[in-house]
Amino acid sequence: MAETMLAVLKESGAPGVVVKKIPVPQTPKGEVKVKVIYASICGTDVGIYDWTPWIAAKLKPPIVIGHEVVGEILEINGEAPHLKKGDLVSSETHIFDNTCYQCRINNRHICENVQFFGYGRNGGFSEYATIPIHTTWKNDSRISKEAMSVQEPLGNSVNVITKAGVAGKKILIMGLGPTGLCAGMVAKVYGASEVVGLNRSEYRRNLAEKIGFDRTVQAVDEKEFGTFDVVCEMTGNVDTIPVALDAVRIAGKIIAFGTPKKPAQFNWGTLIDKEITIESIFGRRIWETWYQTSDLLITGKVDLTKIITHRFKLSEFEEAMKVMKSGECGKIILTP
Amino acid sequence: MAETMLAVLKESGAPGVVVKKIPVPQTPKGEVKVKVIYASICGTDVGIYDWTPWIAAKLKPPIVIGHEVVGEILEINGEAPHLKKGDLVSSETHIFDNTCYQCRINNRHICENVQFFGYGRNGGFSEYATIPIHTTWKNDSRISKEAMSVQEPLGNSVNVITKAGVAGKKILIMGLGPTGLCAGMVAKVYGASEVVGLNRSEYRRNLAEKIGFDRTVQAVDEKEFGTFDVVCEMTGNVDTIPVALDAVRIAGKIIAFGTPKKPAQFNWGTLIDKEITIESIFGRRIWETWYQTSDLLITGKVDLTKIITHRFKLSEFEEAMKVMKSGECGKIILTP
Amino acid sequence: MAETMLAVLKESGAPGVVVKKIPVPQTPKGEVKVKVIYASICGTDVGIYDWTPWIAAKLKPPIVIGHEVVGEILEINGEAPHLKKGDLVSSETHIFDNTCYQCRINNRHICENVQFFGYGRNGGFSEYATIPIHTTWKNDSRISKEAMSVQEPLGNSVNVITKAGVAGKKILIMGLGPTGLCAGMVAKVYGASEVVGLNRSEYRRNLAEKIGFDRTVQAVDEKEFGTFDVVCEMTGNVDTIPVALDAVRIAGKIIAFGTPKKPAQFNWGTLIDKEITIESIFGRRIWETWYQTSDLLITGKVDLTKIITHRFKLSEFEEAMKVMKSGECGKIILTP
Amino acid sequence: MAETMLAVLKESGAPGVVVKKIPVPQTPKGEVKVKVIYASICGTDVGIYDWTPWIAAKLKPPIVIGHEVVGEILEINGEAPHLKKGDLVSSETHIFDNTCYQCRINNRHICENVQFFGYGRNGGFSEYATIPIHTTWKNDSRISKEAMSVQEPLGNSVNVITKAGVAGKKILIMGLGPTGLCAGMVAKVYGASEVVGLNRSEYRRNLAEKIGFDRTVQAVDEKEFGTFDVVCEMTGNVDTIPVALDAVRIAGKIIAFGTPKKPAQFNWGTLIDKEITIESIFGRRIWETWYQTSDLLITGKVDLTKIITHRFKLSEFEEAMKVMKSGECGKIILTP
Repeated sequence: MAETMLAVLKESGAPGVVVKKIPVPQTPKGEVKVKVIYASICGTDVGIYDWTPWIAAKLKPPIVIGHEVVGEILEINGEAPHLKKGDLVSSETHIFDNTCYQCRINNRHICENVQFFGYGRNGGFSEYATIPIHTTWKNDSRISKEAMSVQEPLGNSVNVITKAGVAGKKILIMGLGPTGLCAGMVAKVYGASEVVGLNRSEYRRNLAEKIGFDRTVQAVDEKEFGTFDVVCEMTGNVDTIPVALDAVRIAGKIIAFGTPKKPAQFNWGTLIDKEITIESIFGRRIWETWYQTSDLLITGKVDLTKIITHRFKLSEFEEAMKVMKSGECGKIILTP
Repeated sequence: MAETMLAVLKESGAPGVVVKKIPVPQTPKGEVKVKVIYASICGTDVGIYDWTPWIAAKLKPPIVIGHEVVGEILEINGEAPHLKKGDLVSSETHIFDNTCYQCRINNRHICENVQFFGYGRNGGFSEYATIPIHTTWKNDSRISKEAMSVQEPLGNSVNVITKAGVAGKKILIMGLGPTGLCAGMVAKVYGASEVVGLNRSEYRRNLAEKIGFDRTVQAVDEKEFGTFDVVCEMTGNVDTIPVALDAVRIAGKIIAFGTPKKPAQFNWGTLIDKEITIESIFGRRIWETWYQTSDLLITGKVDLTKIITHRFKLSEFEEAMKVMKSGECGKIILTP
Repeated sequence: MAETMLAVLKESGAPGVVVKKIPVPQTPKGEVKVKVIYASICGTDVGIYDWTPWIAAKLKPPIVIGHEVVGEILEINGEAPHLKKGDLVSSETHIFDNTCYQCRINNRHICENVQFFGYGRNGGFSEYATIPIHTTWKNDSRISKEAMSVQEPLGNSVNVITKAGVAGKKILIMGLGPTGLCAGMVAKVYGASEVVGLNRSEYRRNLAEKIGFDRTVQAVDEKEFGTFDVVCEMTGNVDTIPVALDAVRIAGKIIAFGTPKKPAQFNWGTLIDKEITIESIFGRRIWETWYQTSDLLITGKVDLTKIITHRFKLSEFEEAMKVMKSGECGKIILTP
Repeated sequence: MAETMLAVLKESGAPGVVVKKIPVPQTPKGEVKVKVIYASICGTDVGIYDWTPWIAAKLKPPIVIGHEVVGEILEINGEAPHLKKGDLVSSETHIFDNTCYQCRINNRHICENVQFFGYGRNGGFSEYATIPIHTTWKNDSRISKEAMSVQEPLGNSVNVITKAGVAGKKILIMGLGPTGLCAGMVAKVYGASEVVGLNRSEYRRNLAEKIGFDRTVQAVDEKEFGTFDVVCEMTGNVDTIPVALDAVRIAGKIIAFGTPKKPAQFNWGTLIDKEITIESIFGRRIWETWYQTSDLLITGKVDLTKIITHRFKLSEFEEAMKVMKSGECGKIILTP
C-alpha cells in the first residue's frame, strides 16, 4: 500500500477545503481500513465547505471530510464475523456508542453521543479510509458500485417516505436536491397516488419529471397545487414551512428533513385547526433502512444512475463543489 | 314552558357580552330541546368575550354563547332511537356535516365544514337550548350532573393524553388551566411515571399539586426540569414552544393543543436533530373520546369536583368571567 | 319501467338457485333504486348456492342474491345530497346501522348489527335493485363500468394489503381466486419487494404470473419458498394455516381473510416463539378503502380487466356458476 | 471465594433435578461472575423439571438451571463500561447474538440464534453464576433485592400489557400464575378500566383480588363475563383459546403469551367475523421493557412483595418445586 494518499481536508475553521497528500491512516482497534472506490457529495459537504454554524458546532479541524463512500476492505482490526478482506462496504455516517439510553432502546441512529463520519472525525474523501466495524455495511454484490456510494442519502429518502406512509396518497416533495429526487422515486415505488415536486430551479424540475415525478411546480399557486396527504420538507429553508402547513390537508402529515439556517416562523394554530402531525427524520434507522434501501437497488425498483449527473476525480474536488453549488446537478460522484 | 329565558348573548362584534331575556327557541328539525341544568366556562369563552381574531373569523353575532352544557331533553324533533324525553344529555361542540371527506373517513371531529355549538351558532349559556341530534351525547346516570357539563373539556384532555401515550412515561403539562389540570389527572390514571406541571400562577400550581401532579414548576430551569418523554403544550402562548423543544427528550413527542394569538418562532432544526414528533389535537374523537371520558367518570378514576372551584348563577356571568380572567380558578360552573 | 324483471333468487334453504321473473321492487324510504348495469360473482355466492352453514346462519330465503353490482340511479327516496338520478353507483355490502358501539367508534364495516346486501336482504343479481342511501357509493366516471362492479372485492384486497403494510416486504398470497389475484396486484403497486402466489390450480397460477406476481408455487416446499414478512391467508381452507405459520418470518404478520368451513388446528406456541401477529379483515373500511380503491382504478395502477376472464348474461347464471366452481376463471361478470 | 458451590442441576434428559456441590465456574471472556443473592422459580422451570418436549428441544444436560436471578458482581472479564465490581445485576434470559437479521433490525429479544440463560446454558440456581456482559442489567439501588430477582417475569407482564394498550379498556387475564398476577397489577397502573382474572384455583383468585384485580371468575359464564377489549392468554393451555375468541369484543385484541403443550383448535372464521387481532409476546423488549419495569418498581407503582408468597433456601429446591406445582403460591424466592 502507498504511504501517502490524496485527501480532501478541512484544515481550519473557515470556508474552503484543501486537497492534498497526507499519510495513509493506520487501522485503529475496532475499525476496518478500505480502499475507497467511489465517494459522493452531500448537501452537508456544502455546509462544511462554507463553514456554517451548524457545522462549526460539530467539526473540529483538521479532518478528512466526506461520508458517502464505498470501499474495499483491506484490513480488519477487531472482531467482525460478518466481514472479510475484499468485501465492498459502505459507511453509516452516524457512529453510535451502543451504551446510551437511545442506543439501548433501539434508536441507534439518534444516539445521544453520536459522532459523524466525515464531519465529527475523518471520513472518506480520500484514497483510503477507516470505518468503525459497527457502522460498516456489507454491500450486496448485485448493486452497482456507484449506487453503493449513494446508498446513504437514498437511505434518508427511504426513511422519509417510510415514515410518511405513502401508499395511495398524494405527496408533495419540497426541494429537489438528490435526497428530494430520491424521495420522489421511492414514493412512486411505494405506491403514492401522485408525487409532486417543488423547486425554483428549472434544471431540477426537469430532472424530477424525467425520473418519474407526476408533475413539478416552481412556486406555490393554490389552484395548481391542490392539497396533499403528506408534505416532505426537504429544502432546508424556512420560507417553505408556512407553505407546507397550507399545502397539507386536514389530518395530514408533514415530514421535517431539511435543516434551515434561520428560525422558522409560522402559525402554530394551523397545526391544531387542521390536526396536522409533524414527524422528523435524522438519518437512517440502523439497520432497517439499509435493508430496505438495499432491496430497492437489488430489485432495480430504484435506479440511482438516473440522478447521477456528474463524475469527477477526487483531485477535481473544487470543480465538483462549484457544480454542486450551482444547483444544476443531481448527485456528483468522486473517484479517488 | 316559559316563553322567555335568560341567555348570555354575543350581540355584536366587539368585546363583552349581554345577559338578557330572549324568546325560548323552537326545536328545529333534527334537533332536541333541553332545559339546561349546568353549563361551564371554557377558555374559548374568554376569547369570545374579548373578541379575538380567531373568534371573529368564526362567530357571527348575535348568538347565545356557551358550549359546555348538560341538559334534560324536553322535546325531540326527528329520528333519535337512542334518545328520549327526560334523558340527561351533553353536547359535542363540533357539529359535523357527515358528508365531507373527513367525516367519510371517520374523522368527524375535524369535519371540513364543522360548525361550532356556542360560537358558530347558538349554544347553551341559557335556560333552554337546542342541540343537533347527531351531536347529542346521552349521559350515564352514575355521573354527577356537574361532571356531565365538564365532560367536554375533560374529553380534550383525554384525547391529548391518549395521543400522547403516557404509560410509564415522564410528562410535562405546560399550562394549568382546567384542560391542563384534567390532562394531568388523566395522565396519572393512564400510568404516567411522572407528571410535572408548568404555570406562572401560584394558585394554579397549588391546585395542580393538590389534585395529584407529582410536582410543578413556575418557569424553566434546566436543572430542576430534566427532560420529558412527552410535552403537552396547553398554554396557548408562543413563548412556551421553544421551551417545549428543549424540554422534550430525543425521539420524544410534543402535543399541540393551545392556540396562540401570535405566530410561533423556533429552531426547526431542533425538531430534526432530536427527531421530535408533534401531534395536534382539535377537540374530541367522536365518539371514542366520549366513551373513554365517560368511563373515567363512572369508575371514579377522575373526580372533576377537585377542579371545580367556583359556582355562579347564569345571571352572574360577568362576575364569573372576572374570576375566569384572574386565573385564580379551576373550572367555573354556571346554573341557569 | 318494466313491471317485472329477471332475478337470481335463493328461494329455499337448500343448494341451488332459481332464475326467474319477479316484480320490480318499490324504492323503500332511505334507499335508491338502480337499473343494474353489471354484477359480478363472489366466492360468497358459491357458498350461497351450495347452502353452507355460514350462509344458512345469515340468509333467510327467499331473497335476490348478488352483492357486487353497479347501477344507474332511477329514483331516490330520501335525503341524499351527494346523489342524483343518472349517477352510476355501487353498493357497499355491509349495511351498517350507525347506532351501535362499533359504528359510533368509527368501525362501521364491523357494525354489531350489520346486514348484508345480497345475503341478509335482497341484492343485485337482477335487472333492478334498491340500495340503502348510506351504503351507496357514487363512482368516478373515469372508471370503466365493469370495474365499478368489481370494486367491492378489489376493496377487500386493498384493505388486506393496507393492513399488511407491504412496502419493501416479501409477501405470500395463499389462494389465487379473484381477491387473491387483486391482492397481488395491489401489493405490487404498494411497493412489495416480492409477491409470491400459492395455489393448486395451474390455471390460476398462470393467471397470477400474467398479471404481475413475481412467482407462484403449487405447494409448500421449504427450499423454494423462503420466508415471508407477511402471509395473506385467502384460501378459506384450514390446511394452509400451519403452512402460514411456517412460512412467515420471526416477527412477521399473517392476514386472515378467508373463512374456512372447519375448525383450524395448529401449534399456538409457534405464534409465541416467532412473535407473530395475526390481523383479520372483514370487508372494507367505510369509506377509506373505497377512496383508495377508486384511486387505484382512476390512476390506472390496477387494471381489473386483466382478471375478468368470463362474461355471461344474467339468464345464464347457472352456466356462470359452473365455471366459477371449476376454478378455471378469474372474475365473472353478469349482464342483466 | 469458595471452590465449590451448591447448584440445581439438570443432569440428564428425564424428569427431576439434582441439587449438589459443583465447582465454582471460571468467568468466560465477555461475561461477569456474580454471587447470587436471590433467584426465583419460573413456570419454565417446572417444564424443565418435568422434561416437556418444548424444553427437551432446547436443553442439553448437564446444566445449572434457573434464569430469574439477582447477584453482586465479583469479576468482569471484558469491556463493560457501565458495570463495576459490587454492582447488583440481573440477567436478561434471552442471550442474543447481535449479528442476525432480527438483532440488526432491533428485535434482539427474538434473535434468530437466541440462547437461553438457565435452559440453553448454565443459569443461576447456584451460589455463583456467570452472565454475558451484553445481557447483564444493572439494577437501580432503590429497588428491593427480592424484587430485582422477579424483575424478569414482571418484564414479561409489562411487555404483554404494553402491547395490549390498556388505557381505558376492559381486560381479561386468563391464568393467574405470577406472570398473570403481575399483568393484572401492571394493567391497573396503566389505566385499564376493569381487570378481570380467570383461574380454576381459588387460592390464586383470592390472591388476585387481594392485589387489585377488580374481580375474578372461575370459569366462563357468558352472563357474568361480558366482553373485553383485550384478552391476555397466559395459561399455557389450549382450552382457553376458543374462550378467548368468544370473550373478546368485535375489533378486540388477544395477546398470546402462554405456550401450550398441545395443538390449539378453534374457529378461524371467528377471527375474521369479529376482525380480531392476535399479538404475541416472547419475552421482554431489550432494553425498553427493562426500563419500564424498573420505573414501576422505583416509583412503587408495582409492589412485588404482594405476590411473593414463599421463600426457600436453595438446598430446599425440591420442596419449593412441590409448592410451585401445587398452584397454591405466587412467586417463590430461593436464597443460596
